[in-house]
Amino acid sequence: MYIEETLHYYLDDLASAKPTPGGGSAAALSGAMGAALASMVCRITIGKGTYADVRQEIEELLRKTEYLRSRFQQLMQEDIEAYGHLSGSYKLPRETSEERKYRTDMIQQQLVEAALVPLEVVECAAELIQSCQKIAEIGSITVLSDIETGAILASCAGKGAAFMVHINVRSIKDDTLVIELENRLNTALSTIAEGVDQVTNRVRGRA
Amino acid sequence: MYIEETLHYYLDDLASAKPTPGGGSAAALSGAMGAALASMVCRITIGKGTYADVRQEIEELLRKTEYLRSRFQQLMQEDIEAYGHLSGSYKLPRETSEERKYRTDMIQQQLVEAALVPLEVVECAAELIQSCQKIAEIGSITVLSDIETGAILASCAGKGAAFMVHINVRSIKDDTLVIELENRLNTALSTIAEGVDQVTNRVRGRA
Repeated sequence: MYIEETLHYYLDDLASAKPTPGGGSAAALSGAMGAALASMVCRITIGKGTYADVRQEIEELLRKTEYLRSRFQQLMQEDIEAYGHLSGSYKLPRETSEERKYRTDMIQQQLVEAALVPLEVVECAAELIQSCQKIAEIGSITVLSDIETGAILASCAGKGAAFMVHINVRSIKDDTLVIELENRLNTALSTIAEGVDQVTNRVRGRA
Repeated sequence: MYIEETLHYYLDDLASAKPTPGGGSAAALSGAMGAALASMVCRITIGKGTYADVRQEIEELLRKTEYLRSRFQQLMQEDIEAYGHLSGSYKLPRETSEERKYRTDMIQQQLVEAALVPLEVVECAAELIQSCQKIAEIGSITVLSDIETGAILASCAGKGAAFMVHINVRSIKDDTLVIELENRLNTALSTIAEGVDQVTNRVRGRA
């Protein structure tokens, strides 16, 4: 579990020629950092008497951002595992026709898993951006630059993971599933694009 | 040094109400991840016989991306220290006129430091994006989605750190210095914006 390794160790492995960790896990970690910054802004707001009237709402937002952070942290590892399974299926024997059929089926199955994990990263990023919009509106004014950075990190998680969804989706042969995954991806990416602009506008409006 | 702590520990501290680590260090870590992914793509390319004709160029790019990664890793810590010094200067006594003058001078000095660190993050991100452009052109086609994610992480580092530059620059009283810092920031941000589009176009052109 990389989450229990040092930053140095993780970055060295990310920079190595090893197949994992790769871009998907880096995108998930970016999401976890965005969620952590959103949680920080919530906690600082809760600690200030002047924001007592929004306290309950901020506490709910904090529960949400901490849930998303733990999900991003898990997705970091799930991405590494899904990629490992996919690589493994490409290495299956293909001498007999039975072996070839089994290998093809396994590849298709693992491609779906390897697309679904980064897709969840994009969808979690969309949810995080929606929380950031609300936090930018009612959170403590002293840490608004941190919520902007949090929103940027969330959008980066979404965009980075989207490349990983694309690369796997384009080899999936089930057209109905491809359309469903692409629709989910596009919906989440739209939410992210609109959300980042709204966070920036709200912060500018209060600064 | 957070770089020697676990990811879990860093993210928990980032999410806490503690003043550091904050958005500046998260932006620097995003840059380190982008540089690591660029290095990974270089190393995978070097390992492939079919890319022997670009090997020397890729080796030079790898030296550059690994230098930038180590700089981002240091900037993570420098940002935490600069913020600590700035917070400390705001807490200096201000009862006598000498104390007030000393406090004001120290705050101004630390604001410059607290702006210069994230400014270097933005400038390193601009350099990284330029390396990513070249890697997207000549690197191994099998890992192009990773160089796109690397470029997105670099741009995220630049945009995220830019908010931290702004927040400190706007309290600096030396107008000549403010103009100089803003010019440096805008130059780096333009390089980043153009660079990300070029990486995406080059990857699309080769995919």
